Amino acid sequence: MSPHYVLNIRCGDAVGIVAAVASALASSEAFITESSHFGDEGTGLFFMRTVFRATGTRFATLDDFRLAMAPVAQRFDMQLQLFDATQRMKVMLAVSKHGHCLNHLLHRWHSGELPVDMVGVVSNHAELRRLVDWYGLPFHHLPLQDDKAAQEAQLLERFAASGAELLVLARYMQVLSDDLCQRLEGRCINIHHSFLPSFKGARPYHQAHARGVKVVGATAHYVTADLDEGPIIEQDTVRVDHTLDAEAFVRLGKDVENVVLARAVHWHAEHRVLLNGRRTVVFRHGA
Amino acid sequence: MSPHYVLNIRCGDAVGIVAAVASALASSEAFITESSHFGDEGTGLFFMRTVFRATGTRFATLDDFRLAMAPVAQRFDMQLQLFDATQRMKVMLAVSKHGHCLNHLLHRWHSGELPVDMVGVVSNHAELRRLVDWYGLPFHHLPLQDDKAAQEAQLLERFAASGAELLVLARYMQVLSDDLCQRLEGRCINIHHSFLPSFKGARPYHQAHARGVKVVGATAHYVTADLDEGPIIEQDTVRVDHTLDAEAFVRLGKDVENVVLARAVHWHAEHRVLLNGRRTVVFRHGA
Amino acid sequence: MSPHYVLNIRCGDAVGIVAAVASALASSEAFITESSHFGDEGTGLFFMRTVFRATGTRFATLDDFRLAMAPVAQRFDMQLQLFDATQRMKVMLAVSKHGHCLNHLLHRWHSGELPVDMVGVVSNHAELRRLVDWYGLPFHHLPLQDDKAAQEAQLLERFAASGAELLVLARYMQVLSDDLCQRLEGRCINIHHSFLPSFKGARPYHQAHARGVKVVGATAHYVTADLDEGPIIEQDTVRVDHTLDAEAFVRLGKDVENVVLARAVHWHAEHRVLLNGRRTVVFRHGA
Amino acid sequence: MSPHYVLNIRCGDAVGIVAAVASALASSEAFITESSHFGDEGTGLFFMRTVFRATGTRFATLDDFRLAMAPVAQRFDMQLQLFDATQRMKVMLAVSKHGHCLNHLLHRWHSGELPVDMVGVVSNHAELRRLVDWYGLPFHHLPLQDDKAAQEAQLLERFAASGAELLVLARYMQVLSDDLCQRLEGRCINIHHSFLPSFKGARPYHQAHARGVKVVGATAHYVTADLDEGPIIEQDTVRVDHTLDAEAFVRLGKDVENVVLARAVHWHAEHRVLLNGRRTVVFRHGA
Repeated sequence: MSPHYVLNIRCGDAVGIVAAVASALASSEAFITESSHFGDEGTGLFFMRTVFRATGTRFATLDDFRLAMAPVAQRFDMQLQLFDATQRMKVMLAVSKHGHCLNHLLHRWHSGELPVDMVGVVSNHAELRRLVDWYGLPFHHLPLQDDKAAQEAQLLERFAASGAELLVLARYMQVLSDDLCQRLEGRCINIHHSFLPSFKGARPYHQAHARGVKVVGATAHYVTADLDEGPIIEQDTVRVDHTLDAEAFVRLGKDVENVVLARAVHWHAEHRVLLNGRRTVVFRHGA
Repeated sequence: MSPHYVLNIRCGDAVGIVAAVASALASSEAFITESSHFGDEGTGLFFMRTVFRATGTRFATLDDFRLAMAPVAQRFDMQLQLFDATQRMKVMLAVSKHGHCLNHLLHRWHSGELPVDMVGVVSNHAELRRLVDWYGLPFHHLPLQDDKAAQEAQLLERFAASGAELLVLARYMQVLSDDLCQRLEGRCINIHHSFLPSFKGARPYHQAHARGVKVVGATAHYVTADLDEGPIIEQDTVRVDHTLDAEAFVRLGKDVENVVLARAVHWHAEHRVLLNGRRTVVFRHGA
Repeated sequence: MSPHYVLNIRCGDAVGIVAAVASALASSEAFITESSHFGDEGTGLFFMRTVFRATGTRFATLDDFRLAMAPVAQRFDMQLQLFDATQRMKVMLAVSKHGHCLNHLLHRWHSGELPVDMVGVVSNHAELRRLVDWYGLPFHHLPLQDDKAAQEAQLLERFAASGAELLVLARYMQVLSDDLCQRLEGRCINIHHSFLPSFKGARPYHQAHARGVKVVGATAHYVTADLDEGPIIEQDTVRVDHTLDAEAFVRLGKDVENVVLARAVHWHAEHRVLLNGRRTVVFRHGA
Repeated sequence: MSPHYVLNIRCGDAVGIVAAVASALASSEAFITESSHFGDEGTGLFFMRTVFRATGTRFATLDDFRLAMAPVAQRFDMQLQLFDATQRMKVMLAVSKHGHCLNHLLHRWHSGELPVDMVGVVSNHAELRRLVDWYGLPFHHLPLQDDKAAQEAQLLERFAASGAELLVLARYMQVLSDDLCQRLEGRCINIHHSFLPSFKGARPYHQAHARGVKVVGATAHYVTADLDEGPIIEQDTVRVDHTLDAEAFVRLGKDVENVVLARAVHWHAEHRVLLNGRRTVVFRHGA
């Protein structure tokens, strides 16, 4: 793949931002292949994501473009991030005993549809080791005993050692400590098996069944210290009816969890998700 | 239409209920055109709805069939309801200023697709009178002044005088008193403009926008004294994204409110909704 | 509303288009509030829609901005359209006997949610006159007798006389002649009551029922001489099952027709739909 | 699991069928746990599916119940099938190179959510052998060379030898001969990667992209000699837009294929699907 870059910008909205950015890129002989922006009238913030190809010789590396964009960034007081789109994001998964999200993400990755580099799986249980082995990935068994802090320290160590840039809680049934949440801020995605903010906490499908809802859902969100309150990346729902017990809700919900989590990881890995306070701007690609 | 009846049953589950009911109907020369039942393993309750046509001469009226079913009802200690399906349910609507649900329900009724008899509209405002006039229905303007109890008494009086069997709160933006809720128990359906239990109370779309959800919804439920906690009849959802402000959530949500409320009214009017504690059994017809 | 403009562009893709457009707008003191673009790698075409506000004094009118954009348009050999976003598009509706789409569109317009100016309704039948009267719109009854060409001539005359810019076939059950299709090219939207390309032609719900499908849908598309083959603007679907006969398909489908057609008209009226051969680029807002 | 049976019935509709069936079951001390029936007014046919538990001693085996039902079956000229619900259906999968449906079905089966016994996988390619090996299932590599008839004979031989009762074409990219279709009538389910009847035949996502649709879908159907024309069991759809090329349609469609095929296999395995000419009656459980 020829050099491809993703440029993400956040700043206060103003006249001329798009022009300034696009001009700087044009001057750098960059060919824009995709670009989206959004001005939030409520907060006055401006968000932009641009994918471009280097077509010239003077501007070719990340550093070249960083230099080229510096005056624009300064002029508009931008938070600016530049990524090499040919470098796949390194992702570590965390699981417990439910294997459906793990299986879905690994299959998607293995078949080339999820554009990430999987670098390993951590688990507080051993049940899913064989599946991970099949994919040739390291499986880090970190059982939870008395000392949760020690276990989390190990988790963080494996994360760092693997070079991972994103931790995906693919039905990891442990609440992370506030400290770990803060260390992984914006780099940790969880799938919650309900349509948040309905049914936070434990056993959401059972809560949903007791309430008699007619639709259940799943929510992928960034993890924050405030349980199940982090910025939402993606949600989806599926119909249920009175003939289904809570276990059937669980079974039906798994398909939604799979799809919602895979989308969230996909979009995060392509730098399509920008934080807007406790909300997200998602420059989606496709449904 | 030839005589058609709906028989609804609720009782403890046991061997032989379906056989006993079906045999009693067959002995009465009834031709079953639709039948559904459901045994809730969690509560041990059994629910059944049967639509049948009288084909004989000895059994023709509601009373004939009531007599025919009496031994079965007694044997299984059933709560049994029998309705004449050729009698459309009489429905009164309550609205405030938002006319979309009113417009949708009246059009559906007028075009023969919603099998009810509309008997009037009550409102605490006057804005929607002209629309109601067009449909040739009585419009009862019951403004809310100091004395809410008096206004509710008037509402109840109009309801009773009209012969209405169901009150539909089609975006009626007043909380009913506990007393009124109890008097209308099981006979009053509300549309809440969120996916309950998320975002109870006022301005749910604005709450949803502030939380940054990616899907919004609507919920039709029986009204109880416990605000927005009544048994849910129907729910549905629609995707939203970061480009939409709360007003756009409102606009998009209206289509979902229309469809969800019309379904709930339709199913209730055909006696398809049975209460199962704080949940409902809905013997749906179609999507 | 302060001056707002929509700029739509179509041209061959190349380096620097976005920069050139954005720079020309910035030089004209335009504040971009929304912008989307898309490069079709398959056809090599580039599409862009930009909404901007005039903030200066030198550039304020459509002509000012046309002049400002002229060099850019010439440089990239653009098809460029500029619209005054404060001018609502004038829309004429055509109906036969089914009133659901008419009722939905008129209610949406009347409640301020569909940003168009309705200028009248034509019909080959008289049944829907009373509804149109209520909204205070002209109703043109153009019955179809022997001479279809004459009837179409009348229709076109009313369309022209009203100043309408868009004709919406809101369940108008007549096939337009090739000649009329060509005259209204890109200015006539039809709702077909199936999920195209399935079930073209007459009685699509009955075709769908006979085939035993489990989902039915509706399609809004630009009308072309090739029946039901015009560029698709929007589609959506709803589940059906074996308990539903063809008439029930019809009833369920109406909700989908309403929503799909209203979206298509909304997006067209905001200049969000650009033709890409026999396909469309739709820069959607919401849902 | 205590003895559980499924009784499926098809016959001409008449008074007293439900009563006769339910009475015969009650006399046999059967406890009905689930029952659905449907009278098709269009064809005059009656369909019924009943799940029951043996609670007595005199009636315990399949043969006991067959004898008990014989008089009823004769009286109403029924096609009657009786299944032991504790015996999982034996299923063979057929695949080519796309592994997503295979992976989804095997994971569902392995985690106990798909109530079948997988007995093996046949493929005209070798690529997916390793995945099948992991699940400990026989992998039959039956490459297609000159003699298609010989290959099909081998396929049929493996099918018979394994005791399989259902062949699932989980993206098996070969058209079966008319002869094989007939031999497997009602016992072979295919997933077609479009919303039938749109886009039959090869490369449906590419056809859909060329037509510019806004929704794509998948269809699970029984295989018949008439290509892509067999009775439809299940369908579902997903939105697409202009930013997606045909390859992206393929990627998005896979999730729909997975879910649609798994549902169809699940329902068939629980004897929930009855043929009604070229249509199906599906007594669904859950969404």
